[in-house]
Parts: sequence; structure tokens; C-alpha cells
Amino acid sequence: MDRRHVMLGAAAALATPALLRAAPAVAQAPAAAASGPAPLGQAPGFFRHRVGGFTVTMLNDGSRAIPLANFVRNAPLEEVQRTLAESFLPTDSFRIPFTAPLVDTGRHLVLIDTGNGAQPAGSPVGLVAANMRAAGVDPARVTTVVISHFHGDHINGLTLADGSAAYPNAEVVVNEAEWRFWMDEGAAARAPEAMRPAFANAANRFRPYQGRIRQVAAGAEAVPGIRLDAAYGHTPGHSAVHIADGTEQMLYVADLTNRPELNARRPDFHIVFDMDATAAEATRRRIFDRVAAERMRVAGFHFPFPAAGFMAKEGNGYRFVPGDWSAAV
Amino acid sequence: MDRRHVMLGAAAALATPALLRAAPAVAQAPAAAASGPAPLGQAPGFFRHRVGGFTVTMLNDGSRAIPLANFVRNAPLEEVQRTLAESFLPTDSFRIPFTAPLVDTGRHLVLIDTGNGAQPAGSPVGLVAANMRAAGVDPARVTTVVISHFHGDHINGLTLADGSAAYPNAEVVVNEAEWRFWMDEGAAARAPEAMRPAFANAANRFRPYQGRIRQVAAGAEAVPGIRLDAAYGHTPGHSAVHIADGTEQMLYVADLTNRPELNARRPDFHIVFDMDATAAEATRRRIFDRVAAERMRVAGFHFPFPAAGFMAKEGNGYRFVPGDWSAAV
Repeated sequence: MDRRHVMLGAAAALATPALLRAAPAVAQAPAAAASGPAPLGQAPGFFRHRVGGFTVTMLNDGSRAIPLANFVRNAPLEEVQRTLAESFLPTDSFRIPFTAPLVDTGRHLVLIDTGNGAQPAGSPVGLVAANMRAAGVDPARVTTVVISHFHGDHINGLTLADGSAAYPNAEVVVNEAEWRFWMDEGAAARAPEAMRPAFANAANRFRPYQGRIRQVAAGAEAVPGIRLDAAYGHTPGHSAVHIADGTEQMLYVADLTNRPELNARRPDFHIVFDMDATAAEATRRRIFDRVAAERMRVAGFHFPFPAAGFMAKEGNGYRFVPGDWSAAV
Repeated sequence: MDRRHVMLGAAAALATPALLRAAPAVAQAPAAAASGPAPLGQAPGFFRHRVGGFTVTMLNDGSRAIPLANFVRNAPLEEVQRTLAESFLPTDSFRIPFTAPLVDTGRHLVLIDTGNGAQPAGSPVGLVAANMRAAGVDPARVTTVVISHFHGDHINGLTLADGSAAYPNAEVVVNEAEWRFWMDEGAAARAPEAMRPAFANAANRFRPYQGRIRQVAAGAEAVPGIRLDAAYGHTPGHSAVHIADGTEQMLYVADLTNRPELNARRPDFHIVFDMDATAAEATRRRIFDRVAAERMRVAGFHFPFPAAGFMAKEGNGYRFVPGDWSAAV
């Protein structure tokens, strides 16, 4: 098994639901305070903003903590901890948030990535569909699902607990290189034991959409105004999704970084989920350089909710600046 | 009229509801897109987090834009615009958000500042009570209202549209120097014409609480765990509110800065709302130096919602780092 396969194996293992569930779930709700009848819930995890005439609703899927040790493969733990502490984040584990954009173009209702999907009760993740409903959108209305890449936290929400389609009326749009990589039965058979479940998982999640899956080349539009751009490295066909209407635009960078406080701040940090970490770093720098120079609005799957804002070039890396929250859309 | 009175007059004029209402309300909801039945609302503006065994619910009161010209008195407009652009904020006007903390200590339910209060329909502000209800809390349950200072956007929510108490069962706790300043009839009579409405407004807002207003010295507790600290300058008795339980703490800095992207980033910027701008700057530096050194959690009335996070010392100023959002409390 060469270096790339080791990485691939690690990423696949970590992306497997059963293993992720074993990680400590720090985001669990603690017991209610002895404070009378006030409910202690959070407001629903959705946030709307406009991109031209489009409405983008950021849908939170929850968050979970994984061990920090060995998460960054090419830096000592202390250096990783120092980077997180700079952003006032915990240093005893790594808390990964998940947020997917839903774009209403007026003609299409496009969900980009689907989150962790059906989970056992009390799970801190798998909230995309619930937050979509809280935002007043029936999943049956979704016309199009765009998948940035085939890791479990992006595709598992394609299906309900019984394996049927969570978005029964949607066409699914994917990058053709990503599809080829994960759906090549030969590749799956030749893959190291540890990553075979990830291949099987991909096959299972897309199965109920058979006949309405559209593979596109990098640079192609899923629907007018929503384009898949090559952002290869994290996976062989990992795509950023460019959303534009009129003179306004936003780039959803998917997993170009995990938390920006970690490997946008330090683009040289190679994390275990990046299948080709060297390519991932080069892509990260290329895209963020452009986004920062153009002051373009960005969103990212692992950005802190509401997960949309801007990137400022700072030193040898980038600082994520959250967009301003507003009570009005 | 000396320099201090000019400042005072400007601040009072700007804090008068009628004048603020005349400012452009950029946060108004635009017309719905032609996109089918999806509602276009935002999730309710509240966010919960813990401070020890206390639950703090940040309650958004909305936001409004005011003209940027002359808002900072001691710097050219271009320099102010450059500072805002660094944080990707608009430079054609100044958008002020409002967020008040509600602290459930288990024994007391304490609202700190009350927002802009009753407003005409369609106003972008005055949302504290509605967001409190959305968070499951009946205003009648509030046991204590702490007021940081007597500017309209902090005290107008004390009363309903008919002038009666919005928190009918609450004791109101205020700093004694702040009370003395605004309630001194001689001072009101001697004040420049432009600021008399602010004196009258303060009298009206507190009137329905007569007999249950407690004036305290700087450093005194409103209830166990919630203490008013001197943070004078913005107004003569402007108070920060320290919230602590066990080993955890948070400092609500009220108007120690307006938006932190503006005058925490540039503590030397003197804004028109600061009654004694020199004292306000000194207080700002003193408190933020301590908060940054201790890595203490902070909240601020004009911080971007959810308005709680941390301050990092950076160059000659401070950078606000929002706290991590979580679906679980």
C-alpha cells in the first residue's frame, strides 16, 4: 500500500458512519438547568441570504468532535493546538461542523451536499432535512441535488433510514471523475480492506436515484447559475460549486478546507481526509487566492455555522470572516 | 456649549427614537422571489450558550443602518471605510446590530438591556421581546432587568407601546451614577435643547417601574453571579456586566465599542455616541486588554449576532472572534 492509499484508507475509515459514531459527541445537550419552565433548545439551524435574485438557505447538519491527535499528518500536535487556540477553539478534540447550502433560483431548488443523513436518536448530526423543514421547505420540492464529493458526510443524507431516496423528485448532479473513481468496481475490489466500506456506501446512497443521475465535466452547470468547478485533491473529483445571479456570486468550496480556522489559516496543514494532500493544498491556495483577491462571498461545508462569509489573505494563509447575520433576508 | 456638550448633544440626538427612525432602514425584507411556496423568513434571532450552570440566551433586537459620514469624529471618512472594508462590511452606510443577553441563573431570570422597544410595523428593530418569546420565555417571568446605560436603544424596551412595563414582575437594577446623571432635573433643564428629549425619554421609560428600581454602586451584584462593573465614558455611568458561575465567566461590555470591526479594531476611533470619547477610549483599552489577556468570553450589544465570542489583541487594537455556533446548548 503506497502513501496515497494509506491516506485514502484513513480518509475512508474516518468517513465511515460507524467509526465516526464512536467518536466523542461533545455537542450533546446537557441536562436542563433547575430553572423553571424555560425550554433550553436552540433556534433552528438555518440562515438565509441573497445572491442576486437567488435565495441561499444555509442548512446546519450539526457537528461532532473527533480526536485531534493525528488529524493533521504533517505538523506536531502542539502546532495544531496553537493554531486552534488562536481562534479560541478547543484543543483537546477537533469539533467539525457540517452545513449545506440550499439554493432557490426561482426555477430550481438545489441542495448542495446532503449531510450525514439518518442517525440514531440523540445524534448530534444528520439535521439537514429537519432544518430544511424548519425553514419551511419540503424535501419533496427539491429539484436538484449537487454532490461535491462522495465522502459519507456529504452523501449519506441522500437516503432515508430505509434506504429510499430522501429527495424523491430530485435529479442528482455529480462530477464525472468523482463518479468514475467511486463506481469503478475494479478499483473497489483492488482497494485496501479499510476503504471498501466507503465504496459500498457510495453505491448504496446513489442506488435509489438510478436513472436520474447526471455526470458532468468540470465547468458544467447543474442548472442555470449553478456550476461545478474542479477543486481536485480532497477526492479525485472534488468540486467547488459556483452560484451566480446577475452581478452577485458565491463560491461553495465544500471540503477545500476542513474548519477554516485550521487549514485555511494554515493551508500547508495536510489533514487525513485529503486523499491527495499535495494536490489538495495546491487547489486550496489557488482557489482561496482568487476568492480573497476578488473579495468573493464563500461558503464551506465545515465552516462555522452559518458557514458563509469571506476569506482574507493573511500572511501565508487565509482568515475566514463570517458574513453579517441579519434578521431580514 | 463646550466640546463635551457638543458630543453629548450629538449622542442624545442620535439616540432619540424619532431621529433614528428617519435613518435609512436597509435591513427591510425585500419582496419575495418568484419561487413557489417557500417562506423566506429567517430563523428566530436567539442563541443559547452556557456559562457554568447559567444559560445565556442572546436575544437579537434587529439592526439598522445610519449614515457613515461623521460617525467617527476624529478620522477621515476614507480611513473609516477602509477599516470596515477590512471586515467585508458595507462602506456606504453603517449597519448597527442590537443584541441583549438574557441570563437564567436557575434562581433569577435576568435581562440585560431591553433593545429599541415598541416600533411601528415593519421596523427592522425592537425584536427583543418577540425573540424572547420565540426562545420559549414569557417576559412576565423576567425577575430582573439590568440596564447598562440610558441611551434609547437600551432602555426603550422597558415599556410597551402604551407606556406600561414590558417586564411587569421585574426589579430594575442600574448604576447609581448613571441614574443621577439622567434623573437630575437641574441637569436636564440646563442641557442643550437637542438633548432634552433623551432626559425626558429616560424618565418615561423608568416611570412604570417606580418603587422597584435599585441603584447600585460600581462593583455591586444585581443578583448572585451578575455584577455591574464601571465602564464609564460612553455615558457617565456606563456599566459592563460580569456574569460568572463556578470557574466560567463572560463579560457583557454593552457599548464599550459600537461594532467591534470599527472601534475595537481601532480603539482610537471616537464615535459620536461616546459622551466622553477620551474616557471611553481609555476604558475600552483597559477592559479589552484584560479580556484579551485572560481569553475571557465577551458579549456586546452592537456585536454581530449572536454577539458573543472573544477578543484577540492585534496590533494597536482588538479583533472580535465570534464564538462557535452549536445546535446543542
